[in-house]
Amino acid sequence: MTTIPHVTIIGSGFGGLYATRKLAGKEVRVTLIDRKNHHTFQPLLYQVATAGLSPAEIAPPIRAIFKRYKNIEVLLDKVTGFDLEHRQVLLHGDRVAYDYLIVAAGAGHAYFGHEEWAPMAPGLKTVEDATEIRRRILLAFEIAERQARLERKLAPLNFVIVGGGPTGVELAGAVAEIAHRVVAGNFRSIDPSRARVILLEGGPRVLPAYTEDLSRSAERQLRRLRVEVMDNCVVTGVEPHRVHYRDGSDGSLEASVILWAAGVAASPLGKMLDAPLDRAGRVLVKPDLTLPGHPEVFVIGDMASVKRADGKPVPGVAPAAIQMGEFAAKTILAEAALEATASGPREAEATEAGARRSFHYFDKGSLATIGRNSAIAEIGRLHLSGFIAWLTWLLVHVYFLIGFRNRLQVIWAWAWAYFRYQKGARLITGNSDSITPGEAHDEMSGAAKLETPSSLPSVPERKVS
Amino acid sequence: MTTIPHVTIIGSGFGGLYATRKLAGKEVRVTLIDRKNHHTFQPLLYQVATAGLSPAEIAPPIRAIFKRYKNIEVLLDKVTGFDLEHRQVLLHGDRVAYDYLIVAAGAGHAYFGHEEWAPMAPGLKTVEDATEIRRRILLAFEIAERQARLERKLAPLNFVIVGGGPTGVELAGAVAEIAHRVVAGNFRSIDPSRARVILLEGGPRVLPAYTEDLSRSAERQLRRLRVEVMDNCVVTGVEPHRVHYRDGSDGSLEASVILWAAGVAASPLGKMLDAPLDRAGRVLVKPDLTLPGHPEVFVIGDMASVKRADGKPVPGVAPAAIQMGEFAAKTILAEAALEATASGPREAEATEAGARRSFHYFDKGSLATIGRNSAIAEIGRLHLSGFIAWLTWLLVHVYFLIGFRNRLQVIWAWAWAYFRYQKGARLITGNSDSITPGEAHDEMSGAAKLETPSSLPSVPERKVS
Repeated sequence: MTTIPHVTIIGSGFGGLYATRKLAGKEVRVTLIDRKNHHTFQPLLYQVATAGLSPAEIAPPIRAIFKRYKNIEVLLDKVTGFDLEHRQVLLHGDRVAYDYLIVAAGAGHAYFGHEEWAPMAPGLKTVEDATEIRRRILLAFEIAERQARLERKLAPLNFVIVGGGPTGVELAGAVAEIAHRVVAGNFRSIDPSRARVILLEGGPRVLPAYTEDLSRSAERQLRRLRVEVMDNCVVTGVEPHRVHYRDGSDGSLEASVILWAAGVAASPLGKMLDAPLDRAGRVLVKPDLTLPGHPEVFVIGDMASVKRADGKPVPGVAPAAIQMGEFAAKTILAEAALEATASGPREAEATEAGARRSFHYFDKGSLATIGRNSAIAEIGRLHLSGFIAWLTWLLVHVYFLIGFRNRLQVIWAWAWAYFRYQKGARLITGNSDSITPGEAHDEMSGAAKLETPSSLPSVPERKVS
Repeated sequence: MTTIPHVTIIGSGFGGLYATRKLAGKEVRVTLIDRKNHHTFQPLLYQVATAGLSPAEIAPPIRAIFKRYKNIEVLLDKVTGFDLEHRQVLLHGDRVAYDYLIVAAGAGHAYFGHEEWAPMAPGLKTVEDATEIRRRILLAFEIAERQARLERKLAPLNFVIVGGGPTGVELAGAVAEIAHRVVAGNFRSIDPSRARVILLEGGPRVLPAYTEDLSRSAERQLRRLRVEVMDNCVVTGVEPHRVHYRDGSDGSLEASVILWAAGVAASPLGKMLDAPLDRAGRVLVKPDLTLPGHPEVFVIGDMASVKRADGKPVPGVAPAAIQMGEFAAKTILAEAALEATASGPREAEATEAGARRSFHYFDKGSLATIGRNSAIAEIGRLHLSGFIAWLTWLLVHVYFLIGFRNRLQVIWAWAWAYFRYQKGARLITGNSDSITPGEAHDEMSGAAKLETPSSLPSVPERKVS
């Protein structure tokens, strides 16, 4: 180990970003590796998926964030494995060494072992996911309009969201707002305000991480936005444009668009660390967030399985990832300082895991937004609902947005949307040949070919004047 | 023909959009058909390609523009042909009838018969083109940084733009600004300000549509932005990351990114109209912009070949398309009014082509932007260069941007970019697996597999600390 330790960080989500921030300008060398060139402000990703914000407004380039700090370098690359013995991260044909490693690669979607559902029911984790969901939502209205106008057929316009956690609730509220308010007057042959938005939750109530009174309030607020909430409804199958479920008896729903918000799985990098994992693929880290036997390797954020003092798991939310990132960085800085002041050679023995402090999660409270003027908040014993909770949510999220320019731009976009009932980013983009309704079903997944659902038949040529 | 004529318009570019605007709220029924759900403000597309603006800022949804006008319906669909005899537009398995038809499908790229160059050298016509070009430009820096850091190899960072028309000049200026100013301090292993930006023009001077003094001024302004201008340089071949050219002798240039701005070809819909075409595929319309023998079919904008009074062709610019769109709409409205007041049945004979006015292009002047504080303008005998021309360009373009919100947002984005030397939309998006530099070459086109250029070899694994 050189006097200036080299910290390699994988992932620029909240964990990786805040760890890097803590190390910026300090006596360490940092290499931040990410597959994307931008941070993704995930709490607002649903706004991109529902045409409220542009991708760039929630995705600042990582390099720009750290450009002033010469001790930080950013590499756009994909990690393919680890050589823990030689303290190296493996990339495509290359290696990056480290003295300390912080693995913060986050989580992806989980389909309960049915990965084949993914093309029919996309989840929301990346900017690309968001623009694909936006494309599907907006295209559904276009396809319905086209059918009504040319085939004189009023097909049901159903948006089914699977999973009543924070993302599912946000999506349901925002899709309802698009259908019932934003595009309501934009069509001539269909009435978008008659679209159904259906939220399927496997458990007895939405937002199960909250107290029961707040869950019930959230359901009331959802219903006010004309979202149909189906609790105790377990999805048993997904076909193109159809969802099968069980809620007592078996049933199925026709769906123009199916969105998946029912489960997450930790990044597959966890497996490559040769460490014990929990069922969701998270690494069972030690109390100092390190890999057993490797005090130099931290695993944080959605990749880490950590318990609170009361035995409950630390939730997979942004504040937890931020705290873990800062904790790991502080631990490294403390040891680096200790080592720098130690006169004798190799006194790093003092830095072994035994001497380490444990990570403690500080719960500042939780917020979940539902829609216009609708949210819930749980801050200690304080339970808030409706407008005041929504305002709190708004202020917290704008405050934490990375970058001054983004913040002002988002406020502007929101103010516009709020007062004018308009969304500023109603773009259907993608391969131009896949964008016409006639071909849309075939091209929806970009990978899997989907069948046209039986209830949306194509009809032979006919003349319409 | 019913008393309220049905006008079908194909394309929502400047021609189609302004024709529709003119007919909005009038005694006609309008069906506007487009493959996209949004207008594309093409004069600012290069700003999306160079990370200055987000796509949504220059691409308002068509439905939102016309939502207040109940006589206008919008259909998202792709036209597959025409049945001129029965006055029908053919879609996928459907038909839309018309009493009047306005064909305004614009133009695409032309590669001088070498369509196989397209994946290596994309052109700029759509929002998708723009985000793909943005991806390639930003990725080029990332790949260079990665090579320098991991392979200890400083590869040349060359951006080659083919074609010195307005788009080529805009792109060259904006890419130079990105390299030499915007990302200059963002990298640790490369110096982006040493990147070369090379503009290849086949003729003796850039912006050949302008007078020679303005062309020369444009070249001086480009050189001040450190763009290398090569006149009389004809491209003879394009390979992955290499451009072959002839300028007296044969030569070739290695290129990290190749952009194509050298030629346009009118929409293939022109061919389907069974009319005489010029070499660029434009329809040789009659002086009233209609198809010979079909006074009810107008062809306008970049699809129409029209001569001015002095015999020079009407240029393929937005003002010309706007004037043609409004001319076609006014012609239709005049005939509809005539017919409505005529008491006898079928007196539409009076509306035949002989009675029609001819289209006259009114040239308000031309503007071309080059970069920060750099532009040229030709307004009658007034020739402007530099800052004053740039300011004029700025005001004109913001003024013509469709939609109040977009206008303010663009002003904000530009002000930020101007005063902070920052670009707000530096997003590399696309398939997440194609985004890592190691795989970038293979996936660049999304369709064709490209070879890694011989001068950018991959090296065996090596350890870098």
